[in-house]
Amino acid sequence: MFPVFAVFLTNFGLPLSMLCAAIGLGFAFYLIKTIMASPAGNDQMKQVAEAIEDGAKAYLGRQVRSITVIAVLITILVVWFRDVPTAVGFVLGAVCSLAAGFIGMRLAVVANVRTAQGATVSRKKALQAAFNGGAVTGLLVVGLALLSVGGFWIVMVKTVGEPKALSSLVGVALGASLISVFARLGGGIFTKAADVGADLVGKVESNLDEDDPRNPATIADNVGDNVGDCAGMAADVFETYAVSLIGTVLVGALTAGFGAPVVYPFVLGGLAVLASIAGILFVNVTNMKPGNALMGGVLLSAVICAAMFYPVTAAMFPEGLKTVNVLGLGSATYTAGSIYFAAVIGLLMTGAAVLITNYYTSTEYSPVRKIAAASVTGHATNIIAGLGMGMHATALPVGCIAASIWLSYGAAGLYGISVAVMAMLAMAGIIISLDAFGPITDNAGGIAVMSGMPKEVRAITDDLDAVGNTMKAVTKGYAIASAGLAAIVLFGSYFVDLKHHLESPLSKLHLSAAQIEDVLAFSLKDPKVMIGLFIGGLLPYLFSAFSMNAVGRAAGAVVKEVRRQLAAKPGILKGEDTPDYDVCVDIVTKAALKEMIVPALIPVVAVVLVGSFGMEGAKMLGGVLVGSIVTGLFMGISMTSSGGAWDNAKKYIEEGNHGGKGSEAHKAAVTGDTVGDPYKDTSGPAINPMIKVVNIVAILIIPIFF
Amino acid sequence: MFPVFAVFLTNFGLPLSMLCAAIGLGFAFYLIKTIMASPAGNDQMKQVAEAIEDGAKAYLGRQVRSITVIAVLITILVVWFRDVPTAVGFVLGAVCSLAAGFIGMRLAVVANVRTAQGATVSRKKALQAAFNGGAVTGLLVVGLALLSVGGFWIVMVKTVGEPKALSSLVGVALGASLISVFARLGGGIFTKAADVGADLVGKVESNLDEDDPRNPATIADNVGDNVGDCAGMAADVFETYAVSLIGTVLVGALTAGFGAPVVYPFVLGGLAVLASIAGILFVNVTNMKPGNALMGGVLLSAVICAAMFYPVTAAMFPEGLKTVNVLGLGSATYTAGSIYFAAVIGLLMTGAAVLITNYYTSTEYSPVRKIAAASVTGHATNIIAGLGMGMHATALPVGCIAASIWLSYGAAGLYGISVAVMAMLAMAGIIISLDAFGPITDNAGGIAVMSGMPKEVRAITDDLDAVGNTMKAVTKGYAIASAGLAAIVLFGSYFVDLKHHLESPLSKLHLSAAQIEDVLAFSLKDPKVMIGLFIGGLLPYLFSAFSMNAVGRAAGAVVKEVRRQLAAKPGILKGEDTPDYDVCVDIVTKAALKEMIVPALIPVVAVVLVGSFGMEGAKMLGGVLVGSIVTGLFMGISMTSSGGAWDNAKKYIEEGNHGGKGSEAHKAAVTGDTVGDPYKDTSGPAINPMIKVVNIVAILIIPIFF
Repeated sequence: MFPVFAVFLTNFGLPLSMLCAAIGLGFAFYLIKTIMASPAGNDQMKQVAEAIEDGAKAYLGRQVRSITVIAVLITILVVWFRDVPTAVGFVLGAVCSLAAGFIGMRLAVVANVRTAQGATVSRKKALQAAFNGGAVTGLLVVGLALLSVGGFWIVMVKTVGEPKALSSLVGVALGASLISVFARLGGGIFTKAADVGADLVGKVESNLDEDDPRNPATIADNVGDNVGDCAGMAADVFETYAVSLIGTVLVGALTAGFGAPVVYPFVLGGLAVLASIAGILFVNVTNMKPGNALMGGVLLSAVICAAMFYPVTAAMFPEGLKTVNVLGLGSATYTAGSIYFAAVIGLLMTGAAVLITNYYTSTEYSPVRKIAAASVTGHATNIIAGLGMGMHATALPVGCIAASIWLSYGAAGLYGISVAVMAMLAMAGIIISLDAFGPITDNAGGIAVMSGMPKEVRAITDDLDAVGNTMKAVTKGYAIASAGLAAIVLFGSYFVDLKHHLESPLSKLHLSAAQIEDVLAFSLKDPKVMIGLFIGGLLPYLFSAFSMNAVGRAAGAVVKEVRRQLAAKPGILKGEDTPDYDVCVDIVTKAALKEMIVPALIPVVAVVLVGSFGMEGAKMLGGVLVGSIVTGLFMGISMTSSGGAWDNAKKYIEEGNHGGKGSEAHKAAVTGDTVGDPYKDTSGPAINPMIKVVNIVAILIIPIFF
Repeated sequence: MFPVFAVFLTNFGLPLSMLCAAIGLGFAFYLIKTIMASPAGNDQMKQVAEAIEDGAKAYLGRQVRSITVIAVLITILVVWFRDVPTAVGFVLGAVCSLAAGFIGMRLAVVANVRTAQGATVSRKKALQAAFNGGAVTGLLVVGLALLSVGGFWIVMVKTVGEPKALSSLVGVALGASLISVFARLGGGIFTKAADVGADLVGKVESNLDEDDPRNPATIADNVGDNVGDCAGMAADVFETYAVSLIGTVLVGALTAGFGAPVVYPFVLGGLAVLASIAGILFVNVTNMKPGNALMGGVLLSAVICAAMFYPVTAAMFPEGLKTVNVLGLGSATYTAGSIYFAAVIGLLMTGAAVLITNYYTSTEYSPVRKIAAASVTGHATNIIAGLGMGMHATALPVGCIAASIWLSYGAAGLYGISVAVMAMLAMAGIIISLDAFGPITDNAGGIAVMSGMPKEVRAITDDLDAVGNTMKAVTKGYAIASAGLAAIVLFGSYFVDLKHHLESPLSKLHLSAAQIEDVLAFSLKDPKVMIGLFIGGLLPYLFSAFSMNAVGRAAGAVVKEVRRQLAAKPGILKGEDTPDYDVCVDIVTKAALKEMIVPALIPVVAVVLVGSFGMEGAKMLGGVLVGSIVTGLFMGISMTSSGGAWDNAKKYIEEGNHGGKGSEAHKAAVTGDTVGDPYKDTSGPAINPMIKVVNIVAILIIPIFF
């Protein structure tokens, strides 16, 4: 039976996986219908929700317009320097990435008010509304990614043939990544400028609570949750997913040929959609506590994936996988069991990322409690403890990533690493459901406060908000770990593709065999490679410096505007006059769109500049790619961990520890939380797409410069 | 004439350079005599100075005892696993490193009170006392380094022959580096725990000024300046100097043979001692403003070096330098002009490091002013601005380092990089004079305040203290940049030595030629190398996490003790009762010695563990070494820059900007300064010796594991 199954899967695996993706999208639309059908609360709630929705729509509309200008420019450049298929891929990747963020965000602003309304009925109703809102985003992200990459591949193979289709896939990756950098940066700057600005004047100067309607920046803050945490994260993971899929296809095709190696990652992705649906259904029917229900859903999905991956892997590689060895030492054959092992490593890595981040950012464990304790001696010791903790928090994730590389490479070579990454990303459907849960419950809490709902309702939304915070932190760990691994697959694609190109007659450099060997050695002994490592290592630093400063500047502008409004209309603080929310939304919108351009261009410009050095450039680029991954991974993990821990250290104190709300320790913890805001929600997560842009642009320019 | 000169230099260059070193030491003793002969002030001043001196002596005595235990253990291990000559080298390196720090520190605590006394006479007298105190440390560091490494080399060549002498040189490097890590860490934890602790209760809670005698931690704070900034920095630069010299000798001998390539770095060092003496004399006779006088001295030394290096280089390499190419592509010949060019690159790099750090940390320029401006909106925006600035500040130094590598490698291969580093370090004599100037003036200010001297005197010491702050920041830029380059030379020594060893019959692994080539490829394509990069990249993070937390913990203990004393004796704050200074000194002493052990062992243990993997370990170690350099360099630069900038942003506000002392902005700036303390004085600078320990231990274990 297996041989038949094998032929069947290799021939129809791609359409079948797209069918799975379509089922996922169908289920997402079913969820949308249920959510829309549920009651949206009273008029006051609707009014607040509408203000948030308007702000989010307005921002995203303007973001799309800004990005479109840049995208059109890049499309022209791609057509000019590369070819039309790649440009088509670029547009497709960009549109889908934008769409994933846009639809997910639109749904989040619908689900938030229904979560608040659900909380008036029961905790379970509220949980369902919030989780299903997030699940739509999760399913959309993986569904769109599978359909767009798979559809593009099928059409291109039919129209321009396999080799050309392969080289134009990088266009899709570039489109997805570039949009993702903009979405992460723009959304991240928006959300944190609004948040920091609102906190600085509201909480610190005027003693207002979070989400107090008297704070003129409060709507901007809630809009930010949607455009940053929701749309930004969706675009980010869409991109990691698409890029991992494309990287696996590239590595598979170039080291093991077309056929099963190319179809296999799609099949993993398709099956995982079904597993994610099972997980989502589980969360909807279980009566567990919210945190356990969500984790149960993830675990169930992972177990189903592990169970389904085995027969499929065995069927698709009945005689194992024969690849050329990328280190240039002949070929190697890997068994189906080894390939399955690599996939399991990816699933385990997902679990490890979730557990480790949870340990470092949850109020249950010592890291957060130590930061809370350090707040007692003041602002400075809180910051020192948080920074030290963030550095410490890099050890386990990086250790796990190193172990994953070791094991999956040992099992099935470079293709093994790709499969592990793909298996990790296959879980994205259910993981993003958790993540989007965060901003929805956060907003629901905001709506509950602003529309003056009873205490019991706010207790439920507060409770869900705390779970949402943990989930947001946990998925950030997943996002950065998977981004790091995906970037390594892209680096693998770079040198496999570069070798292929330099040896082909199309190469412009016309290098001798010895010269090609010299370039492809990518040896640490070579000072050009070392210089590349330094340049690459610098990129995340420069990028983060710009985005940190952007948040600081934009938050400063919000502070000034809020102070101006409070001074001009003294009635606002007394609750007699309504503040002008739109002006604050407008300020952060403009600032975010203006400030996202320069940092987003840093990686593109750097790679193109280094690439222009010809043969030495090709060599140095190897260093640049790896350098950006190394420092980027450490910075990303330490920034998101510190940020999450500061946030929860504040929450821990607010629960009544070390003097509770209003104590000096609490003030110090608020400082830590505010510093953590751009760390964990702007600069840190934006590094994920950034390091992939570096790697993708390098692949893109191979035929242009070399 | 030149050929005669050439033969003369190659044969007698080494003894001649040691003569120069001896002249330097002689001049240092002359300076010591002049300093000791100058008046030490009134009884009250002497009393304060004595308290500081006692604390510093007590700390260093206990530090020496702690380190001795570890050093004896390591000596036994080295004898057991390597050989006696290497162990002798280890002891020599350790003793000299300790001595450099110890004598320099002893002199600083003598010069501080004389600087305070000098300030009662004139600004120039005070400047001379402080600068000459620092100059003694500078001359001692370079003199001891040249004499110990050169003496060891001469003796070993005579007794065990050149090859064995070469391999035992790594023992000297290990001794110097390991002591330096302990000195930096122990001193850094001491100084910052005392400083942060004193500030938190003194300035923030009890509204006491810096150095107020009513603060029980104030003597500990002043002791810290000496054991951290003075002894720590001296041990650190002694180590970088010795290690660069040894690295250059190794690279020279293994790629170009014994003779001129080995003698040349000593000659550069010897000549630079004379140039440093000229610079020191200039500072003593000029009537320029303090800051300009110090910079003038550095510039004069650099110009003299550049002028003297040319004829010597031309004489020593009349037919150029013939080396084997380390990338394994045959041999290469470099002209004397090219080698001289590499040396000039090193001198220029010194200038670049000084100018760039000055830009980022001086109150004159926009980076510090932006942080000061961000303090107006609160603690959090001050921290965000400082962190962002630190990231930004990595760009230019790393760019210059990359350019130095490119140019010096282009000029004379790996030996060219070594020569550039050696030329940069040759300037250490005068540069450390500037650095040690900082803690001496800082202490002088403390003595002036505590002994209640008139306002005009304190104006002079405050003024010199501000210059000292800039100098301290500037020399940190020099220390980290030179450490990064020196580490790269060590990595070069690692692979040159590894190749040599694996090809020799002594190798335990008995690898085939193809296997040796595979190991020595150190290719980024190889997942083992990638894993090595991640492990290496993690080391500075883990190391800094431990040291940051150590400062936080120890400072917390100081805070508790100060609060206890102030509560137990209410008379202290009224000035009616004297606090018990010794208890605070004792607390930080114990904490520093306890906390320095674990982080110092991290790099050693990590390298030994990786090395134990045999052939794969040798390969992975290449990645570990480079990974630690890449992340270490970025962390070191960003931490020291942020710290320096936060410090001066506070000073800028204290000058009356943004509301001046006591304003909300000032409080926020004090938070930034406090966070910056462990950043710039503990974790950041301790990374310098740490990355070199990683590289030296790797060289040391080559014959043990491979």
